[in-house]
Amino acid sequence: MRIDILTLFPAMLDGFLSESMLGRAQEAKLLEINVRNIRDWAQDKHRTTDDRPFGGGAGMLMRCEPVFAAIEAVQTPGCRRIYLTPDGVPFTAAKAEQLSHEKHLVLLSGHYEGIDQRIRDTIIDEEISIGDYVLTNGTLAAAVVVDALARFIPGVLGEEMSLTHESFTRKLLDFPQYTRPAEFRGMSVPEVLLSGNHAEIEKWRHARRMEKTRSVRPDLLK
Amino acid sequence: MRIDILTLFPAMLDGFLSESMLGRAQEAKLLEINVRNIRDWAQDKHRTTDDRPFGGGAGMLMRCEPVFAAIEAVQTPGCRRIYLTPDGVPFTAAKAEQLSHEKHLVLLSGHYEGIDQRIRDTIIDEEISIGDYVLTNGTLAAAVVVDALARFIPGVLGEEMSLTHESFTRKLLDFPQYTRPAEFRGMSVPEVLLSGNHAEIEKWRHARRMEKTRSVRPDLLK
Repeated sequence: MRIDILTLFPAMLDGFLSESMLGRAQEAKLLEINVRNIRDWAQDKHRTTDDRPFGGGAGMLMRCEPVFAAIEAVQTPGCRRIYLTPDGVPFTAAKAEQLSHEKHLVLLSGHYEGIDQRIRDTIIDEEISIGDYVLTNGTLAAAVVVDALARFIPGVLGEEMSLTHESFTRKLLDFPQYTRPAEFRGMSVPEVLLSGNHAEIEKWRHARRMEKTRSVRPDLLK
Repeated sequence: MRIDILTLFPAMLDGFLSESMLGRAQEAKLLEINVRNIRDWAQDKHRTTDDRPFGGGAGMLMRCEPVFAAIEAVQTPGCRRIYLTPDGVPFTAAKAEQLSHEKHLVLLSGHYEGIDQRIRDTIIDEEISIGDYVLTNGTLAAAVVVDALARFIPGVLGEEMSLTHESFTRKLLDFPQYTRPAEFRGMSVPEVLLSGNHAEIEKWRHARRMEKTRSVRPDLLK
């Protein structure tokens, strides 16, 4: 799978891309991630990428010219071009899995107050929001999307992790987990988990998941 | 404001912290961000931080000892200790603003299948989820929280940006924005935005916000 991230702040992703799972996935050729600086496609002599909004208002908008040029330079037939914006459709684990089946994604990170609407109307296939909050720019949001979808690409998850027993794989929050020592500062692990009775353990875990989901995220049970 | 991020992957944040707004905010002493490696508090000779879950199941859990030691080493009286987890309460712009008023935050990034519940029960004040998806670890989630809250700290936002006219400041999605050129590849900016009639422009923008919110996020209007 190939992913191109278009941003004005490529250096923001230096550490993220070389560390941990994503570094290994790229070495193993499971994933090719290119971070591109939109400014490289700026067309005037000052290499500007932004300008003031028509109709007034605070802040600056990303201009059509460099963004059209950048997307046209990296896109391939059948690729999916995604704009990261708090105005978009909320990102979910199901969407992450769906995107993991694509051959090529182009992720556009906006900046300033936003981007010229003509970009969104014509060369963006889909708009995604990672949550109901505003970030300085979409670069972190692109990183979140890449991290969440990479986990669904076969071979990317190391042996130390798995997709089982995770929040959202079955639309319930997770059960409480405990590891050694069995007693820590007077706090014990629940008896049932030490019992070796797998049916009882499963029953206990399911009850805790329902309980937690009802308390923290009743919206998931609707 | 001081923020300590506890993670097993501190290098993931190298680029993020030095770039853009956050780099400037730290230089201007508006924000002090320390990224700490939980492994530095591992107490056995192999410096392990994880172990298998009691009761069975895939994956590894973060152990009590290094996490208790790490939090106890960095916490200050009155600080707020937050665990980033998909099981947590959904993060919002309102929560970002609220956290921006704290003096000291400790952000714990989990890894593997999760962390020992005794950590969550005793030395965590609050659990936050940045969205309904699962990440390799909470380090990116901590970065998202820092980016979203830093924007509410007076002086952090540069002049090129502002908090006005943004998604979620008034619980509606944003209106379409346009900048020069007024005509690009045959696509024109809506007439009203070139009219100079501010009352008409406000009316048009409000109608677009309602329209977009109704279409993409009807849940925000409930």
